Amino acid sequence: MTDYRPTPEDRFTFGLWTVGWRGVNTFGDPVRPPLDPVEAVRRLAELGAYGVTFHDDDLIPPGSTPAERDAILQRFRGALDETGLAVPMVTTNLFTHPAFRDGGFTSNSRDVRRYALRKVIRNIDLAASMGAKTYVCWGGQDGAETEAGKDDHAALDRLREAFDLLCSYVREQGYDLRFAIEPKPNEPRGDVLLPTVGHALAFINELQHPEMVGVNPEVGHEQMAGLNFAHGVAQALWAGKLFHIDLNGQRGVKYDQDLRFGAGDVKEAFFLVDLLERSGYEGPRHFDFKPPRTEDMSGVWESAAGCMRNYLILKEKAAAFRADPEVAAALAAARVPELAEPTLSAGESVADLLKEEIDLEAVGRRGYHFERLDQLALEHLFGTR
Amino acid sequence: MTDYRPTPEDRFTFGLWTVGWRGVNTFGDPVRPPLDPVEAVRRLAELGAYGVTFHDDDLIPPGSTPAERDAILQRFRGALDETGLAVPMVTTNLFTHPAFRDGGFTSNSRDVRRYALRKVIRNIDLAASMGAKTYVCWGGQDGAETEAGKDDHAALDRLREAFDLLCSYVREQGYDLRFAIEPKPNEPRGDVLLPTVGHALAFINELQHPEMVGVNPEVGHEQMAGLNFAHGVAQALWAGKLFHIDLNGQRGVKYDQDLRFGAGDVKEAFFLVDLLERSGYEGPRHFDFKPPRTEDMSGVWESAAGCMRNYLILKEKAAAFRADPEVAAALAAARVPELAEPTLSAGESVADLLKEEIDLEAVGRRGYHFERLDQLALEHLFGTR
Amino acid sequence: MTDYRPTPEDRFTFGLWTVGWRGVNTFGDPVRPPLDPVEAVRRLAELGAYGVTFHDDDLIPPGSTPAERDAILQRFRGALDETGLAVPMVTTNLFTHPAFRDGGFTSNSRDVRRYALRKVIRNIDLAASMGAKTYVCWGGQDGAETEAGKDDHAALDRLREAFDLLCSYVREQGYDLRFAIEPKPNEPRGDVLLPTVGHALAFINELQHPEMVGVNPEVGHEQMAGLNFAHGVAQALWAGKLFHIDLNGQRGVKYDQDLRFGAGDVKEAFFLVDLLERSGYEGPRHFDFKPPRTEDMSGVWESAAGCMRNYLILKEKAAAFRADPEVAAALAAARVPELAEPTLSAGESVADLLKEEIDLEAVGRRGYHFERLDQLALEHLFGTR
Amino acid sequence: MTDYRPTPEDRFTFGLWTVGWRGVNTFGDPVRPPLDPVEAVRRLAELGAYGVTFHDDDLIPPGSTPAERDAILQRFRGALDETGLAVPMVTTNLFTHPAFRDGGFTSNSRDVRRYALRKVIRNIDLAASMGAKTYVCWGGQDGAETEAGKDDHAALDRLREAFDLLCSYVREQGYDLRFAIEPKPNEPRGDVLLPTVGHALAFINELQHPEMVGVNPEVGHEQMAGLNFAHGVAQALWAGKLFHIDLNGQRGVKYDQDLRFGAGDVKEAFFLVDLLERSGYEGPRHFDFKPPRTEDMSGVWESAAGCMRNYLILKEKAAAFRADPEVAAALAAARVPELAEPTLSAGESVADLLKEEIDLEAVGRRGYHFERLDQLALEHLFGTR
Repeated sequence: MTDYRPTPEDRFTFGLWTVGWRGVNTFGDPVRPPLDPVEAVRRLAELGAYGVTFHDDDLIPPGSTPAERDAILQRFRGALDETGLAVPMVTTNLFTHPAFRDGGFTSNSRDVRRYALRKVIRNIDLAASMGAKTYVCWGGQDGAETEAGKDDHAALDRLREAFDLLCSYVREQGYDLRFAIEPKPNEPRGDVLLPTVGHALAFINELQHPEMVGVNPEVGHEQMAGLNFAHGVAQALWAGKLFHIDLNGQRGVKYDQDLRFGAGDVKEAFFLVDLLERSGYEGPRHFDFKPPRTEDMSGVWESAAGCMRNYLILKEKAAAFRADPEVAAALAAARVPELAEPTLSAGESVADLLKEEIDLEAVGRRGYHFERLDQLALEHLFGTR
Repeated sequence: MTDYRPTPEDRFTFGLWTVGWRGVNTFGDPVRPPLDPVEAVRRLAELGAYGVTFHDDDLIPPGSTPAERDAILQRFRGALDETGLAVPMVTTNLFTHPAFRDGGFTSNSRDVRRYALRKVIRNIDLAASMGAKTYVCWGGQDGAETEAGKDDHAALDRLREAFDLLCSYVREQGYDLRFAIEPKPNEPRGDVLLPTVGHALAFINELQHPEMVGVNPEVGHEQMAGLNFAHGVAQALWAGKLFHIDLNGQRGVKYDQDLRFGAGDVKEAFFLVDLLERSGYEGPRHFDFKPPRTEDMSGVWESAAGCMRNYLILKEKAAAFRADPEVAAALAAARVPELAEPTLSAGESVADLLKEEIDLEAVGRRGYHFERLDQLALEHLFGTR
Repeated sequence: MTDYRPTPEDRFTFGLWTVGWRGVNTFGDPVRPPLDPVEAVRRLAELGAYGVTFHDDDLIPPGSTPAERDAILQRFRGALDETGLAVPMVTTNLFTHPAFRDGGFTSNSRDVRRYALRKVIRNIDLAASMGAKTYVCWGGQDGAETEAGKDDHAALDRLREAFDLLCSYVREQGYDLRFAIEPKPNEPRGDVLLPTVGHALAFINELQHPEMVGVNPEVGHEQMAGLNFAHGVAQALWAGKLFHIDLNGQRGVKYDQDLRFGAGDVKEAFFLVDLLERSGYEGPRHFDFKPPRTEDMSGVWESAAGCMRNYLILKEKAAAFRADPEVAAALAAARVPELAEPTLSAGESVADLLKEEIDLEAVGRRGYHFERLDQLALEHLFGTR
Repeated sequence: MTDYRPTPEDRFTFGLWTVGWRGVNTFGDPVRPPLDPVEAVRRLAELGAYGVTFHDDDLIPPGSTPAERDAILQRFRGALDETGLAVPMVTTNLFTHPAFRDGGFTSNSRDVRRYALRKVIRNIDLAASMGAKTYVCWGGQDGAETEAGKDDHAALDRLREAFDLLCSYVREQGYDLRFAIEPKPNEPRGDVLLPTVGHALAFINELQHPEMVGVNPEVGHEQMAGLNFAHGVAQALWAGKLFHIDLNGQRGVKYDQDLRFGAGDVKEAFFLVDLLERSGYEGPRHFDFKPPRTEDMSGVWESAAGCMRNYLILKEKAAAFRADPEVAAALAAARVPELAEPTLSAGESVADLLKEEIDLEAVGRRGYHFERLDQLALEHLFGTR
């Protein structure tokens, strides 16, 4: 049994806002002190992370002077150099400030939309200078509590305008940067624009440069809509659009829990790692979680370490599952490989197809043996095989 | 106050399987006798419907001989001629027979996939001969209870193969027919492929003839995922993909209820009608509901009549809402029209944009007055304005 | 048509924390300035409210000196006297401070539990001095994210200990005060103790003085579990335990929305008012909502006014529904009154019962005409009857 | 590592309707042949089960003559004798026949209510003769789609009347039999009476013989309301009311899935077994699942075997978790044992309590280390400890 110690090769990354979350919510005051980003970098490096990510405001407090900003950046880059941590992704905070109470790119207020674009553009420059290759956009305040208050057609037009502008800017600057849209069904708004991976993928197809924009699915966000996360990620992969991924945990259809990875739907986490590891996805395994308010700072680091450890445990199990000859036999019995065969033969015409007959009753009696297969998966998860 | 009597101009349509549902479910035997499709046509015509729709098996019992099929069709066409009812949409039953227990187009069994294609193609010929312009595809059995049992990448490949083949067939035959995919998140399978409007829209973009395929959103199916139906339909409209629509009612995240239209989330129904009527959507208003098992046949017709009546009531209310000068003022106060203004001015450069400053604190204090607007909507719904 | 202007006779009450909510949540900073409780009292009185309610900390900032406390109370009582507003209910904040991060009465920390009891007892004295008749207890932090961390048996023991102590204290002091437990399924904790009205009612039966403790159901809290609020309230009424009620709005299974009353599930709101008004419940109609973050203070008051206005509109509609002769006929056709007849006749023995036979097939064909009845309810809601 | 082979000592039981489920649902025809109850008994015995349970109609087809009934029972008893299987629980089918379309004990039709009582009483005699100690009552059709159609107050009165009558009958007959109510939030009715464990517990307290009635919680039924099953069972245990339990699997808030035990929320299953095994609950571990429609009969038996095997695996893991010294230390660090200490000291008065002071800020900084504890649980679940 391995020791599941993460190394930078595992490409684990964390948002500064995760370990730095102070625990403020609708019902509670902060429970933890502010965390110095440099301290976060050092601790995450010690734990075996590959990189860190941040919203602009996580690193540079709003209102900082240019000199303060420079000093913060210099110190932060120093910590990165010292630890070797990368910054593969950067994002923008378009939600905390009251100005964003009706959204960023799709606020009904044009001046807010313009400010949101400026805030993103300025941070894109920073992202590029940090070497980030992915720029995540989460429009959590872009939504509505009343349908009357938001003209969806116009909202989607504005969202397209924003992404077209940002893509154009990145191309003009020659940055090696792609965008990843993070969907969420609701919270903090009653309903959020682009609520699922599917809606985001569909939106991307309407852009001027769809090749520059993909998705950043988050475990909990899809599960908040009762959707199967692995199936959603699979569709994103099929469309060539899995540009980034947010790993965490959620226990069902409720508020956004942001549990540590592995601590939510365990079986789904197993199948997700199984999918990711076989998919060719080479991007970071990014943890976007919130250490529960019950934890002090020692619990924060326990929690962060747990995210990585659980991924490695599940990775080992998934590999064993796929290498198990009984699993191979069970997959064959379940006709899983048969789905990869084209339904029509090469060169077959519709006329040929229509000539074929089937013994429908015999086919109706056919069993698929998925229970056997699922049980084998469970046993690998349990470690009883 | 109008009498809300439907006429064919309202373009209300019903599936034969709706009024003909006998009430079988996991926990209960049939409660109603079989309904003769010709009787259904006559009763729906009397109630003011514009047309009927059907699955192949609704009209022609599986196993019918060609002669029986012809007799059934002749009699059915007679009823259509007699009543003037149209058949604007036809669909296929790829779920009831045990052969479809692992799906139709994406069954792991290649012979089932081939049979499913044959079943659809043969029914497309019938659909075209009936003058249907839309062919709906609901793949309710295309899903999984265990992720291990379904290779999503292959499943999406097969689904694309199926639609590419069907589009090609329709083009070759010269039929004036478009496809509409109906998404559903789960039930009868644990998770269904293309679970939401968004996922279906995204899938369509990968087809050879995306212009021939749109979506058929169903009120309850989106609400089963906790999604806002009006927002989902708005995105489909924005993408030019609302080819058909299934109206019914659902009360929250639970099993598929298929209540009569208006009997679920009343406020959402109001905003949906408001959206549809202003959108330019000219297709049928199709009711896909199930009269509850508690009803006898008189309740079935009450329920069908209620679907149409509720639509007309809400249509009148939505028109009054939009015509109300106080609503116009409230929309302006909520800056709703401002979202239709491009965020950048014509010809404005990023450099220009970046020069602008904003009084962030002042903007943060700005209220959006959505409560006032939503209350006005409610009052129109209540009839208290 | 009435003008739906509330008066104190309508017994509408508001928590200071509702109109005073500043809009802080997990993703957003405060959007509104602090609201002086005295200002809240005056504005609510102008709007037609009957009373106000508060958590201890809403009125008296934590850390106030006795002198400051006295001054605050004197000023507050002055506003009450001036406006005639009552304080029919008081509650305790056992959630905001970090000390309550693992709960109040059931925190794993004994010192926190003891502090929670002291905080409640001190505020009970204030409640009694204000003339409050109901003391609400919401244990929102009493829950867990991991089952391992909370010994439910012990937690229920401690909760019982707390209520037994509090009841004993109230009896000793001779206060005319009853407790009302407010259930909630989750948020801010992953799972909350006593998640529904049912669980709270069951718990109360284990107390030393069950007659002193009832429930305070909240619309949104039950709907967050997908439960029908009217049915839950009906069970509380049946048990003689509806001691208080929290009215607001929620749109389905998601985070706690606290919308204004009427703005969530409209149909449920109609049936709730219908139930309350016919039930003999004489307590306050208490609004526990949060004006959305998109609103400035003018929107806050719009929202508060909307809560009351919607209640009065629905009250009028419900009365009309019950007075409608066609509704009476439809209720009879649906055999609703027949359910009030005892199933056995007076003095009938089991032996008598067993002798009876039934024509099961005839009974199986019987329809219940609920669709007709529900449509009549909808039409009263729409104002089209 | 043990081989996890079940034996009768494990007290695993299965409903005849589980392995005998033919796969009919709203969208699909039967996929499997009828299963002879005697065959079910033999196969379950071979697999290591302790007993079987049944609805009246599972064993004796409705409409059987007394002679047929006797022959069936004789043959069935023969199989029990041959295999040694027990019948610890029996229940009634009050849902399949159209006569129950508006419920059994609370149907609006008095004749149906009377028939339902007769059906139960007759089957109670059979249950007693079989040696069953528990009689489960699931009122799945007792609910409503429209609030207008069901007078909840009357419905609860009728439900109480029914249980009071049944308890009285059992007492008169001198049967050693207790009732267990099985709650469910919805499906097949839109909302079901007594939707959760809590509501059922609360109802029981209103009966003449509450000591004769407990609950039969089902994993999936509580999870359909997003409720934590282990917490619900814990409250039932605390109230001394866990008379029976239905084990299966569910993946979130959706239709009733009835997956095999272990195949739903894996973590919850772990904590449930942990709770049950430490609770002193000595009743059967009853599996109420439905082998998915994709399975043929071999899959049915795989699935049944999987239920038992997963229970035994989790039982071993839970025991190891509790025996792990690091877990003991983590529990202590999380102050879990401290919750078992009374909050007040023996003889302590409120006056004493009020004298105590607390360093609130210090307490606020305290961490609870639940993440460490939960990670240890996960690792036992994974088998990596």
